[in-house]
Amino acid sequence: MNIPEILKLADEYNQELPDLPELPEPPSGADIARWIDHTLLKPQATASQIEEVCEEAKTYNFASVCITPFFVPLAAGLLQGTDVKTCSVIGFPLGATQSSVKVVETLVSLAGGATEIDMVMNIGAFKGEDYSQVLNDILAVVQVAHNQGAIVKVILEMALLTRKEKTVACLLCKQAGADFVKTSTGFGPGGATVEDVDLMRRVVGSEMGVKAAGGVRTLEDALAMIHAGANRIGASAGVRIVKEAIT
Amino acid sequence: MNIPEILKLADEYNQELPDLPELPEPPSGADIARWIDHTLLKPQATASQIEEVCEEAKTYNFASVCITPFFVPLAAGLLQGTDVKTCSVIGFPLGATQSSVKVVETLVSLAGGATEIDMVMNIGAFKGEDYSQVLNDILAVVQVAHNQGAIVKVILEMALLTRKEKTVACLLCKQAGADFVKTSTGFGPGGATVEDVDLMRRVVGSEMGVKAAGGVRTLEDALAMIHAGANRIGASAGVRIVKEAIT
Repeated sequence: MNIPEILKLADEYNQELPDLPELPEPPSGADIARWIDHTLLKPQATASQIEEVCEEAKTYNFASVCITPFFVPLAAGLLQGTDVKTCSVIGFPLGATQSSVKVVETLVSLAGGATEIDMVMNIGAFKGEDYSQVLNDILAVVQVAHNQGAIVKVILEMALLTRKEKTVACLLCKQAGADFVKTSTGFGPGGATVEDVDLMRRVVGSEMGVKAAGGVRTLEDALAMIHAGANRIGASAGVRIVKEAIT
Repeated sequence: MNIPEILKLADEYNQELPDLPELPEPPSGADIARWIDHTLLKPQATASQIEEVCEEAKTYNFASVCITPFFVPLAAGLLQGTDVKTCSVIGFPLGATQSSVKVVETLVSLAGGATEIDMVMNIGAFKGEDYSQVLNDILAVVQVAHNQGAIVKVILEMALLTRKEKTVACLLCKQAGADFVKTSTGFGPGGATVEDVDLMRRVVGSEMGVKAAGGVRTLEDALAMIHAGANRIGASAGVRIVKEAIT
């Protein structure tokens, strides 16, 4: 689809969203860990805190450890030989860097061992309706990531978008071949909501992933997101969530 | 000074700070604009909002326009032939990217027309006491910026640091040849305080700049920072501050 077609479809979806596709069976017990990106993105996080997060990730078998690019080589080294992936954030959390810099940041993260890339959409370009800029920015990161077998989640910072914009953003990500849409950075004015996850899942359909991140602190929160259509949760409270799930 | 010497000096300063050096005459009336970086760093800022900020900067003759890297070419084009500089933020606001990526981001901003670079210190490495990493990270950006005649301000995110750490951070910036220390990103847990600016000015002495940013909203705020030792103010309320100064 080209951009006029995307905007036309978004108009239609704004009148009536597609049906919610059939969702996979939600995880039970400790299996919920496989749906969680164990996350530590605070700027003051130290190497020893990253080591601790990686230890927890191995213990509980989380999907990934989601960390800032500086700590990617450390985490990837610690997680080598396990099923836990290393997830790096790109253009984070503002999304307002040049595409060339996002690409270099992605390449450096991939070289350091990341296999999941959570990039922030260029929100300012999006708000200015420069949709080809937004699309090309995502495409550029997706290309270099896919070339090296990594997946890309695009953070939309849903709390900053209108309902119609949320739909347009999801369709741009789908068009760019991204693997996931993700609700929030955790640094914006709001986190994941059930309503947003529902909209995202309806718009992207069953082939793409939906990651709910920001403010997911309990098992109840996580399951609400999963029932709304999320198949990945970003949370710093992963250990608490798994412990709740197994008791 | 090597790092053990820096830490020793920080210990001494933690007992007793050096005297406040003689400060330049504070600006009067509309001249305060020359001390202000007119700032718009919201991720949802659009090109037309950046254009407006640049227009205001030309009208009031601010020191610079401080914007995200994506908008540097736009702003630099609009400000060409004026005294208003284009200031780009690097590794912003978390500071937790690889030095190589900070360097590329700086080079891309310089190529786009930025002549002031506000980089965020690697706060996590600092908290983990990896001071040589922190020093080399700053040095790398300072080198490429100075090579092209640009200046570097290092954002310390003071609200995350202990009193002793604040001193160490200032001394590392001085050692790296940075041009300014800057209090805050505006995205952290706190903004500029008079106490922090006083400490920074005493530690760096009279040869380096001190930029107070984050929460400076009125002329009174700005003058308090300047009287404490700041010679640059970062604010989104620059127009209001100048208007207050000339009435």
